[in-house]
Amino acid sequence: MSVGLGPLPDFHPVAGVRLGTAAAGIKKPGRPDLVVMALDSGSRVAGTFTRNQFCAAPVLVTRDHLAVEPPRYLLINTGNANAGNGEDGVADAQTCCDALAQETGGVAEQVLPFSTGVIGERLPVDRLVAGLPDALDVLSPTGWADAASGIMTTDTQPKGATRRITLGGQTVTISGISKGAGMICPNMATMLAFIATDAAIDPDLLQQLVSELGDQSFNRITIDGDTSTNDACMLIATGQSNAPEITSASDQLPVLREALLSVFLELSHAIVRDGEGATKFITIAVEQAASVDEALNVAYTLAHSPLVKTAFYASDPNWGRLLAAVGRAGVVGLDLERVAIDLGDVALVRNGGRAESYTEEQGQAVMDQPEITVRVDLGRGTVRETVWTCDLSHDYVTINAEYRT
Amino acid sequence: MSVGLGPLPDFHPVAGVRLGTAAAGIKKPGRPDLVVMALDSGSRVAGTFTRNQFCAAPVLVTRDHLAVEPPRYLLINTGNANAGNGEDGVADAQTCCDALAQETGGVAEQVLPFSTGVIGERLPVDRLVAGLPDALDVLSPTGWADAASGIMTTDTQPKGATRRITLGGQTVTISGISKGAGMICPNMATMLAFIATDAAIDPDLLQQLVSELGDQSFNRITIDGDTSTNDACMLIATGQSNAPEITSASDQLPVLREALLSVFLELSHAIVRDGEGATKFITIAVEQAASVDEALNVAYTLAHSPLVKTAFYASDPNWGRLLAAVGRAGVVGLDLERVAIDLGDVALVRNGGRAESYTEEQGQAVMDQPEITVRVDLGRGTVRETVWTCDLSHDYVTINAEYRT
Repeated sequence: MSVGLGPLPDFHPVAGVRLGTAAAGIKKPGRPDLVVMALDSGSRVAGTFTRNQFCAAPVLVTRDHLAVEPPRYLLINTGNANAGNGEDGVADAQTCCDALAQETGGVAEQVLPFSTGVIGERLPVDRLVAGLPDALDVLSPTGWADAASGIMTTDTQPKGATRRITLGGQTVTISGISKGAGMICPNMATMLAFIATDAAIDPDLLQQLVSELGDQSFNRITIDGDTSTNDACMLIATGQSNAPEITSASDQLPVLREALLSVFLELSHAIVRDGEGATKFITIAVEQAASVDEALNVAYTLAHSPLVKTAFYASDPNWGRLLAAVGRAGVVGLDLERVAIDLGDVALVRNGGRAESYTEEQGQAVMDQPEITVRVDLGRGTVRETVWTCDLSHDYVTINAEYRT
Repeated sequence: MSVGLGPLPDFHPVAGVRLGTAAAGIKKPGRPDLVVMALDSGSRVAGTFTRNQFCAAPVLVTRDHLAVEPPRYLLINTGNANAGNGEDGVADAQTCCDALAQETGGVAEQVLPFSTGVIGERLPVDRLVAGLPDALDVLSPTGWADAASGIMTTDTQPKGATRRITLGGQTVTISGISKGAGMICPNMATMLAFIATDAAIDPDLLQQLVSELGDQSFNRITIDGDTSTNDACMLIATGQSNAPEITSASDQLPVLREALLSVFLELSHAIVRDGEGATKFITIAVEQAASVDEALNVAYTLAHSPLVKTAFYASDPNWGRLLAAVGRAGVVGLDLERVAIDLGDVALVRNGGRAESYTEEQGQAVMDQPEITVRVDLGRGTVRETVWTCDLSHDYVTINAEYRT
């Protein structure tokens, strides 16, 4: 079950990108679990990665390879995260890169590996490598939808977004896919996202864009507060459109940035909408904060509170839990009299207590919706930050208590 | 259901303390929900309270009254937290204190009020006040067990501890009760604890003891990371034993401190053992940390991780989730190669990966136990901190999704 997540869009192909998906039997036979993205020469790639200190072997190898060669292949498997395997894990990831390089006549450093799935089990390298020819055989510019399915773990639906915009009079395409769905927290999550455009983008700007837009989207979503070892968000610019190269001085940059941000947001929200066991999509906006840290701290305290999350699950306008969570967020010198909390368009808390105008019926009407916005006004400054999360349901417990069985 | 929590002990009465419990119909008719503790003149009381900034009206009033008069009465209700009610809540708490003072011929400032239950609904003052005579009628030195039941909210079992020790050749008694069971987190929780001894204790030392021992026990337990608005831990010393007064210079202080700590630990662990939906009692010990903050940060990251908690619920030795949680705890400069994790007496993680000696059977054998210790060795210093928590089960979600219905 997911919240307001539609079927995959009709992906616009991105010139210079081909995708091939195969079933390599990495965890279970017969399901698509191996994706190869092939990039034409001249493509530029930038990424942002998990901040978990136990970052997985493929993250280490991808970072190394990015620093050495312009990438030509992204090699993605689901079913096994290749994390927590120490030196063996790095060797396994490298073996896979070697194998793909050998199949395609390139060098291993042109291959970026990504893995998602169970932590702490050795990657079944033989099966993965044996699956490579099948994936390469079906490489196609129209392979996006199959790839979106091929990177899923506990996702119930594949996730994608696609846009066409005009830059300098030329059509530019952006398409992307992502996967969640648990262990989602700021600083990346068990999430992978691959966004490609045929725009030409200056390499430094490309890195800046993926970092900034990732912060505003994938690093603002949380399902359970757990940060995965494997997260990566990659932005690819093939440069095959006819639009002029975008640099930080380009007057077309805002247009490109806005389009990219909308893709980043759609893909990141899709992860929350398909959060493990999610029945509600919750937007938490903290306003009039004195600093970004303060705003995010309050927002995440609410977003991570099991009591707040179970109240959403129960459609219970239990505003006391919201108020208690704000109160324990550690905002130094918070003036309770200035705190206001709105649930949807209903005034819930004013002056440190229940708003006089509030009625249980008003609160219930908002809580009964599948998409709910909580707005917390701290009355301290001008900073506003938004995070997105979902509720905590029985299915979350079921999914995570049975994941390995 | 609770984990390894036995029936109430046979409480030793504490000279100078009488307890009376009544059913005032505060939330539901017929269940004990009102407790009065009457202290003889000369008793000293110290407390430690919630750090939630939205602290409840009774906490504000108790703090005020403690500063004015030596307390003679503790007035405790369950069924309504009297939190989030602004000025009205404070007035309601004061009205209850006034009523008890009037019934007993004292002054309101000698009454300390405590409330637990639903946040954000007005305290039913009339019903509470109407119940006072019933509670006063049954005041008795043997009222401990009834009081333990009379302060419960979602607790499935009443909680108590009792000790007799010898101080300076004289018998000294310590008895206490506590209640949980959700919204439990460091810095107090929806928990109340009342511990009384007939020892005479210097007032400054009494405050120091309740703060220090509270930090080592009630402030080291967590069920769901939520800190309540109402928490209080009160330590009462009636001074009616024949032992000499204990000051910070007394050579008997270590004996008293150890006995008090064991009562604090037993009462706080009881809260975790009866945590909402708990099926496992988890001890998380972080060792060789560089600082207390660092040790606690790692311990709480594990203790609050929904993925770790659901793995315990499933008896799943999913060590990858433990490792990922340590990795995201934000320890600056953590050397992964030096991190070791043990599950019970089984070596789980060594050198940043699964221990070579580890087998799934070993891990499973530990996970199948109802009480499990996780030891994380950071290899950075000499600090050790322990926190206690429980697992995250279906029943946690059920209890908190249905609390108000």
